[in-house]
Amino acid sequence: MIEDMLHNTRLRTPFVHCITNYITANDCANILLACGGSPIMADDPLEVEEITKNCNGLVINIGTLNERKLESMIIAGKKANSLGRPVILDPVGVGVSTFRLSTVHRLLQEIQFAVIRGNISEIKSIWSGVGSSTGVDVNPKDKITTEHLIDIIQLSRFLSKKTGAIIGVTGETDIVSSSKKTYIINNGHSMMSKITGSGCMLSAVIGAYCAANDTNILEATASAICAMGLCGEIAHKKILSLDCGTASFRIHLIDAMSKLDKHNLKKGAKYEIR
Amino acid sequence: MIEDMLHNTRLRTPFVHCITNYITANDCANILLACGGSPIMADDPLEVEEITKNCNGLVINIGTLNERKLESMIIAGKKANSLGRPVILDPVGVGVSTFRLSTVHRLLQEIQFAVIRGNISEIKSIWSGVGSSTGVDVNPKDKITTEHLIDIIQLSRFLSKKTGAIIGVTGETDIVSSSKKTYIINNGHSMMSKITGSGCMLSAVIGAYCAANDTNILEATASAICAMGLCGEIAHKKILSLDCGTASFRIHLIDAMSKLDKHNLKKGAKYEIR
Amino acid sequence: MIEDMLHNTRLRTPFVHCITNYITANDCANILLACGGSPIMADDPLEVEEITKNCNGLVINIGTLNERKLESMIIAGKKANSLGRPVILDPVGVGVSTFRLSTVHRLLQEIQFAVIRGNISEIKSIWSGVGSSTGVDVNPKDKITTEHLIDIIQLSRFLSKKTGAIIGVTGETDIVSSSKKTYIINNGHSMMSKITGSGCMLSAVIGAYCAANDTNILEATASAICAMGLCGEIAHKKILSLDCGTASFRIHLIDAMSKLDKHNLKKGAKYEIR
Repeated sequence: MIEDMLHNTRLRTPFVHCITNYITANDCANILLACGGSPIMADDPLEVEEITKNCNGLVINIGTLNERKLESMIIAGKKANSLGRPVILDPVGVGVSTFRLSTVHRLLQEIQFAVIRGNISEIKSIWSGVGSSTGVDVNPKDKITTEHLIDIIQLSRFLSKKTGAIIGVTGETDIVSSSKKTYIINNGHSMMSKITGSGCMLSAVIGAYCAANDTNILEATASAICAMGLCGEIAHKKILSLDCGTASFRIHLIDAMSKLDKHNLKKGAKYEIR
Repeated sequence: MIEDMLHNTRLRTPFVHCITNYITANDCANILLACGGSPIMADDPLEVEEITKNCNGLVINIGTLNERKLESMIIAGKKANSLGRPVILDPVGVGVSTFRLSTVHRLLQEIQFAVIRGNISEIKSIWSGVGSSTGVDVNPKDKITTEHLIDIIQLSRFLSKKTGAIIGVTGETDIVSSSKKTYIINNGHSMMSKITGSGCMLSAVIGAYCAANDTNILEATASAICAMGLCGEIAHKKILSLDCGTASFRIHLIDAMSKLDKHNLKKGAKYEIR
Repeated sequence: MIEDMLHNTRLRTPFVHCITNYITANDCANILLACGGSPIMADDPLEVEEITKNCNGLVINIGTLNERKLESMIIAGKKANSLGRPVILDPVGVGVSTFRLSTVHRLLQEIQFAVIRGNISEIKSIWSGVGSSTGVDVNPKDKITTEHLIDIIQLSRFLSKKTGAIIGVTGETDIVSSSKKTYIINNGHSMMSKITGSGCMLSAVIGAYCAANDTNILEATASAICAMGLCGEIAHKKILSLDCGTASFRIHLIDAMSKLDKHNLKKGAKYEIR
């Protein structure tokens, strides 16, 4: 099942529109190509509607936000909704400013998201406000530990019910929930937090997988998260054997995505369903 | 001949102003340095005229377009024209939106380009409008095949006559034409389409080669395309031997450009002149 | 001493806000993570004050400048000043346009910088105006040679007294001065000028080191410059052994930063104090 999502993505070459930040846009475009998609990045109100119209999916990432981009997000999101195309939200660092938080609240009001993916601090900040996190990384007190795994599963199901979106909470353990069903994923490597863009890239890959599997958003999201985590594991093995550092890790991560096939994914995916 | 263009570029260190998108700006700056040029990226109307004034060439790339950048393109393009410096146009994804198409039409009206380089879908879109392509990649029905190679040569010559610019149509086979003379180039590797920015980087290198060889725009453009294609071939060999993926390919592509000399280019360039 | 600055940075994970250009933002974020910091990039007036408030340091880089970003720089700089957080200025290509020069003058008037770091052409341009350099690289006539090393030490001390900031003049030899004390640093490799972003990345690392060592700005800046130069040397050795080019050099440079510890830095740092 999980592996079919990957296969379909390679088969269908989904065309994914990203309205995203300029820090990791290049990484997102490259990993979209690596996973079998075709990226287009455009963020101006003068062209986003037309571009979304021709895309199979839309990824909205609120890094390096400004009002012009926000307007574009609304226009593109509504267009994607009207055409039934999946829209992914990556609320990067939503807890760092009132502007990001109010942007996410407005986006949630005006757009029906297929998937909302963030780290636990970001997901919590959406519903608890600014100040609950200081940056784009996880607040140490929010780390997903076994003891509160149950709480996070319940939270993600509750939020899924509330928003109608699949909720992806990524970290050491990743949780992907609809209102009723949850994937608990244990792929990945801690080095992914030592490069910028792991989260942004994952959201882009989720965009491609959902665009190629739009009747199966929960499984597509879980599959993308397994795939990304597995690529992190592969990349880490590579850099250990080559005695390299974090920049090489990023290269091998994208390399691994470009070579991943359904057989590797089936073999390497570590998840349980509840 | 071809190899002298490379040699002059390394010798003269042309200073190239790029008004470009934020997806591939880093790659463009790095490959400009790798090929012997010196890049400056600036896109605000408040400074582009002064910057173009001190440059040997200007590259205009319409990715991640907005009105502020468009205004800068017009100002910088006119300045470069008034000083006789070559201006390169990369009409990235011109067929995806009315905004991009009308931008290119306005640029063509107000600026005399030395070179217009795009894939076949982009070149066709400029004269046939929005909707003829859906993304930034080649529309499958536009692929250059032997049977319509002749058509594309004729089209590129016709467009060169019409615009006064050298027309570069890049793909599996690359065609570079003045109104009377055409280079048909067979360097390159299909993996170049599996990374973002191959086209943007090529336009940047064309900018450097033309800036360093401004009395010989046709040959400079053909030389840059041979060089880039040859680097793609070299990079592909490298990653095969190292069992790597697309991100490593991008690194080895720029690496190859930084090490390419006129002897390698002379030996490796595959082209015929008609 | 020098090595303690590195150690503290890894220990304290300083949170660094960068208002920077889109060419090298990804590199800056990655090297900030590699050296032990935590980056956030945001450039809109609607959110920079709140973000700076939660950061340990602020880096202002004037590449790809526009008026919206300038406004953000002023707001964020004033906030950082009011909280006593170190602010670093990287006057990228300040000599290329009146806009960049007047921006730097305004920033110097409204913000108290902890460190101003540029190449010799940039540092000179701030006080001698537009036209003294044509690009973002060093004007050949400004190269630091033994004969005018003394002059540059005097200039940097004079400028430090004038601005209250530590002045970093980086090039083949690096000079870091307060009004009374100077570090003369001889780490680094010429290949660092063959990739884009060496200077921007260095300023980001200085931001992290100063944020983690804010009572010791002179030593923190000198330490960051030694660390970056040493990583350049390590990266150069790597690519020689692997027969690679400039893109691999960039990867190995960031790799080296991610692996550098205080023992390597102590052993590899080459400097004298005057």
